[in-house]
Amino acid sequence: MNYGIVLQVLGSLFIIESLFMIPSLLISIYHKQVDTFAFLITIMITIIFGFIFRRVKTQNKSINVKEGLAIVSFGWIGISILGALPLWISHSTPTYVDALFEIVSGFTTTGATVITNVEILPLGILFWRSLTHWLGGMGVLVFTLSLLPALGIGGFQIFKAESPGPIAGKIAPKIKDTAQILYTTYITITILQVVLLKLGGMNFFDSFVYTFGTVGTGGFATKNASVGAYNNTYIHIIIGIFMILSGVNFSMYYSIFQGKRKEIIKDEELKLYFGIIFVAVIAIGINLYGTVYSNLGFAFRDSFFQVGSIITTTGYSTANFDLWPTFSKGILVLLMFIGGSAGSTAGGMKVIRILVTFKLIKREILKIFHPRAVIPIKVNDKVLPNETIAGINSFMGLYILLFVCSTILVSLEQIDLVSAATSVAATLGNIGPGLGFVGPTSTFNGYHSITKLFFSLLMLLGRLELFTIIALLAPKKWRKEI
Amino acid sequence: MNYGIVLQVLGSLFIIESLFMIPSLLISIYHKQVDTFAFLITIMITIIFGFIFRRVKTQNKSINVKEGLAIVSFGWIGISILGALPLWISHSTPTYVDALFEIVSGFTTTGATVITNVEILPLGILFWRSLTHWLGGMGVLVFTLSLLPALGIGGFQIFKAESPGPIAGKIAPKIKDTAQILYTTYITITILQVVLLKLGGMNFFDSFVYTFGTVGTGGFATKNASVGAYNNTYIHIIIGIFMILSGVNFSMYYSIFQGKRKEIIKDEELKLYFGIIFVAVIAIGINLYGTVYSNLGFAFRDSFFQVGSIITTTGYSTANFDLWPTFSKGILVLLMFIGGSAGSTAGGMKVIRILVTFKLIKREILKIFHPRAVIPIKVNDKVLPNETIAGINSFMGLYILLFVCSTILVSLEQIDLVSAATSVAATLGNIGPGLGFVGPTSTFNGYHSITKLFFSLLMLLGRLELFTIIALLAPKKWRKEI
Repeated sequence: MNYGIVLQVLGSLFIIESLFMIPSLLISIYHKQVDTFAFLITIMITIIFGFIFRRVKTQNKSINVKEGLAIVSFGWIGISILGALPLWISHSTPTYVDALFEIVSGFTTTGATVITNVEILPLGILFWRSLTHWLGGMGVLVFTLSLLPALGIGGFQIFKAESPGPIAGKIAPKIKDTAQILYTTYITITILQVVLLKLGGMNFFDSFVYTFGTVGTGGFATKNASVGAYNNTYIHIIIGIFMILSGVNFSMYYSIFQGKRKEIIKDEELKLYFGIIFVAVIAIGINLYGTVYSNLGFAFRDSFFQVGSIITTTGYSTANFDLWPTFSKGILVLLMFIGGSAGSTAGGMKVIRILVTFKLIKREILKIFHPRAVIPIKVNDKVLPNETIAGINSFMGLYILLFVCSTILVSLEQIDLVSAATSVAATLGNIGPGLGFVGPTSTFNGYHSITKLFFSLLMLLGRLELFTIIALLAPKKWRKEI
Repeated sequence: MNYGIVLQVLGSLFIIESLFMIPSLLISIYHKQVDTFAFLITIMITIIFGFIFRRVKTQNKSINVKEGLAIVSFGWIGISILGALPLWISHSTPTYVDALFEIVSGFTTTGATVITNVEILPLGILFWRSLTHWLGGMGVLVFTLSLLPALGIGGFQIFKAESPGPIAGKIAPKIKDTAQILYTTYITITILQVVLLKLGGMNFFDSFVYTFGTVGTGGFATKNASVGAYNNTYIHIIIGIFMILSGVNFSMYYSIFQGKRKEIIKDEELKLYFGIIFVAVIAIGINLYGTVYSNLGFAFRDSFFQVGSIITTTGYSTANFDLWPTFSKGILVLLMFIGGSAGSTAGGMKVIRILVTFKLIKREILKIFHPRAVIPIKVNDKVLPNETIAGINSFMGLYILLFVCSTILVSLEQIDLVSAATSVAATLGNIGPGLGFVGPTSTFNGYHSITKLFFSLLMLLGRLELFTIIALLAPKKWRKEI
């Protein structure tokens, strides 16, 4: 591994991070809040680390697979370690581990919190915490639409047929192109939502915070009651729609720019994504109306919001869905695993992988009747290579394996099985709230510090499509087997 | 589909079934019990149906894939429909649906019951219900070691490299050979366990009943407290060991006959199977000792028994594991999904599929570093073809899909999520008890009749490796697509 180049890139990342802390500093100064010092000192530390890392000497400037994985993994970890400082220094969290959990949750766009009362947080901290969602979301887009297709991790090569091959040198220019289009789209959607929320009567500060949480599919709020604090159907619907839009593969928006409308209408992942949302909203809406809601409109409003929030792994809530009937909760748990579309800011397994699994099952049935037929798996009329399918299967296997083993480990905390399982699902899938102990009106604060660190790792694993970090941790022995 | 030949085979099955009801009839007559009439009438009905079906005329005697699937599926369903009659006629269950659930549970070697007090059941009924485990277990062995490898369903072709190809005509003689060896092994193990239980002080009747439940990995008992009713460590250990032996691929015993000891020691599935059991027993033992048990020996005795019972999907209990700490319960739930070895009488996903999934994950990690390397997946030094791997992946995908969707459907019963999920896991995996509402001291009696029928379907689906029934239900449209 070429550590020099990894550190250099991390250095640049830190300097960029310090720049993004300046708005929070200004907000803090303007409102004369207690967190000014915390931001000042963090910005200084971050810049110093940035410059030291950039100064690391290296003769070899090449970035290969290993360096790419290291930059992404250590990049996410590094900016979290530094980004957690303002929360700790300003005493917004009692310990540094809590601060780290909170900011990892921010950058991974999870939205799980350990802060029981966010309404007393200084404004700079509130802004910074939500801005990490927005930054993390953008990072994920670049990561999943440029780097992963190049490496083909977890079957990600399918998402862009024209993505560069596995030759590292070719990645950089392509990333730059893609990134520029993504930035533009992402910023456009952000501005649009801020304006629409402001028009709906939300104040300017909150409009930004909730927009960051929405487009990054994060979920941090300014109120303890999340979006439910706004008794305003317009705001629920705007946030609901933008969450769902943020769970769409961003290359779809690129296609709109290019005028390729047909591609969008025919896209199989998009159809399945909207299909799942439609069915889930109807099923939960009817279930709620028959049981805990007496108003049909409210039942469907809350069903729509919560389905949108969970499938896109945002995690905002307008109702305490932990009190909903088991049928509705069961559907929400299923959505936690499905997640949004690939190439969106959403987490989870991703709809495309579910789609391919359906197709594999169908093929297996056909194979029983036609044992010697060669039946290709196609997505959007393109044949998937066997390697892509193997990548998808391995990803799903690893996801479930991590989920199960982590649940068992977490259950050492002596909580019930549903709380343990949904805590893991909510962090690994970058959702935020779960059920029971970590339900929408609760936080992750009750867990032991070590468990909080473990959840932080799960959030990172989920966000980086598992294999990015796992590959770095793989025993060297394995690699020598080839 | 050649319905004539399907009905003819079903007819023969029914006649065999009626013969196997005679011991229960004799027990009933000898002990002058109330179920004599129920067996008499059922045997008559079964024989009549048998002869009528055998008389169905057909010019075409060939059994192809479709007919094979139909015989297995309708065979299991048919013998359950008739086998349920004695329970219903003797009023051992209040409704016919209950009787059907009970006997499907028997033939699928599940062991889930709707009878709240088994201790008042007539002896003939008790014997018949447990005998269905034994018969079902034998049926499964023939099915998974002869028919499935031929069809390659769910990746089952790996279990016997020398299994016949997908040409239907070749299956029959091979089945006969294999079946004979299996019968011998199965009967030997049965006799051995009956003798060992009798030596441990169990009465003759119970020795048979518990042996049927053990070697068939079923779980029906003569006592409401299951094996826990025997406060006798020797009996716990004998049943524990025989459960674990029954979860081993029966072709291993064949290898012992052939003197191929090396093959057994090197078998990767067997090693993983015992490895999982070992780790689970230790983990749960320690967890129990630290919490609900003050005696280390008892903690490990009950841990050993319960791990053996759940991974082999038998379902006997010596303790109310629903009251164990979440960590232990979490491990048991994981074991429910893993299940026993392929080619055993156990249910679940099967250890071999877990093994292959591990290998796929490892390969995916290696592929990141060596994108162009062709890395074969090997089990026992044999390369698995891509089709086998695809079969395994499809099976696992379908298993989880069925589990999730069924859990959501069952949760319409307004029970908690853990009860709903473990009810489904326990029926789909042919285990028996779950947690909460269907915990080891409880029954499935609380469910609605429609839900009981649904669970019966799940038991059949799980027992017949999903695809057997699903393929029959697949839309005709699909098959025309090729």
